[in-house]
Amino acid sequence: MTDLRWAAVDHRPFLIGVAGGSSSGKTTVSERLAALAGSAAVALIKLDSYYVDHPELPVEQRAMVNYDHPDAFDWQLLNDHVAALTAGASVPVPVYDYVHHRRGDEVRTIHPARIIVVDGILVLAEPVLRDRFDLKVFVDAEADIRFIRRLRRDMVERGRSADSIIEQYLTTVKPCHEQFIEPSKRYADVIIPHGGRNEAALDVLLARVRELADV
Amino acid sequence: MTDLRWAAVDHRPFLIGVAGGSSSGKTTVSERLAALAGSAAVALIKLDSYYVDHPELPVEQRAMVNYDHPDAFDWQLLNDHVAALTAGASVPVPVYDYVHHRRGDEVRTIHPARIIVVDGILVLAEPVLRDRFDLKVFVDAEADIRFIRRLRRDMVERGRSADSIIEQYLTTVKPCHEQFIEPSKRYADVIIPHGGRNEAALDVLLARVRELADV
Repeated sequence: MTDLRWAAVDHRPFLIGVAGGSSSGKTTVSERLAALAGSAAVALIKLDSYYVDHPELPVEQRAMVNYDHPDAFDWQLLNDHVAALTAGASVPVPVYDYVHHRRGDEVRTIHPARIIVVDGILVLAEPVLRDRFDLKVFVDAEADIRFIRRLRRDMVERGRSADSIIEQYLTTVKPCHEQFIEPSKRYADVIIPHGGRNEAALDVLLARVRELADV
Repeated sequence: MTDLRWAAVDHRPFLIGVAGGSSSGKTTVSERLAALAGSAAVALIKLDSYYVDHPELPVEQRAMVNYDHPDAFDWQLLNDHVAALTAGASVPVPVYDYVHHRRGDEVRTIHPARIIVVDGILVLAEPVLRDRFDLKVFVDAEADIRFIRRLRRDMVERGRSADSIIEQYLTTVKPCHEQFIEPSKRYADVIIPHGGRNEAALDVLLARVRELADV
């Protein structure tokens, strides 16, 4: 008799959640994991792809949505996609259009893999998603360092003024960090301080991914 | 021409420091690392073996030494031993006699290994030792949970009264934790919350040790 239970256990992907504040370095961590193991071994899903679409709002109002709040994300769709990947199906991940603040018409097909990494500020804050993870990582960085990185990035890459970045930081980014992101750290299995510049910690996570992916 | 530089790099042991508060679960973590890889691959050194000896003090005064303070430890000897192990020599680690609060006459010989784990409350607080580590781990646990573990252990294993445990906790353990141990967390590469019961984090550290030890 074939032991289907063991076959199922053996083939279930290993789910890693990578959370952390805005500009904490979490994307560096998750992209290094994905790059190392190769796309055949690691599927990388970003929470940022799952912003709720608001086609009914004029663009000025869409620009004013609080994108750091849990309500900004389509958790149902993300959870459905993670469930489907876990069961061995490919999923159409939305491509979010940051210029018009809309979910675009295109999708990016993500295929199932031995390891699924879900990256985003709130992935340890949402209980249904959180409970799916086999390994919960929180990438930590001091608040001033996170703000300085965000300031530099938004001034250089997005041509924004320091005033508008500070205004957004104080009205939405910081309050949501303190209310939702920081408290979710208590669910982490591993906390990585010093953001994405922490090679010793990356080597530890990469060893686990290599072991799981057998690469 | 033989490239001695590479040979030296290749053979230098990998040094892991495992710090954390009293009863945080750090010993569980470091002993699991050592057990997994086997003593040929991992040498485990405990800071507790390096209490300063006070033969000049009567036993009642030795019992009153603050064993949570950095001054309670013979850092010079510990650093010499780590340097010797790193250079490929065996070292005679003192065996501390907790009953008489004395360094005993016996020693335990520790042989060099691919991985050297140094475990203890203050191993990330002492700068010379800290700078030797290739990987700095801090095992974290909430203060109330650490106190409850200590209370249970000292009542059951050492037959002490709750009153005396509380007195010691409030006068030396907690102040030294806040002054020396907790601030040393900022030097950690990886923080392991939920002490030694955190299998997901242990699996991550063990993967790194297996990779380094090639076992």
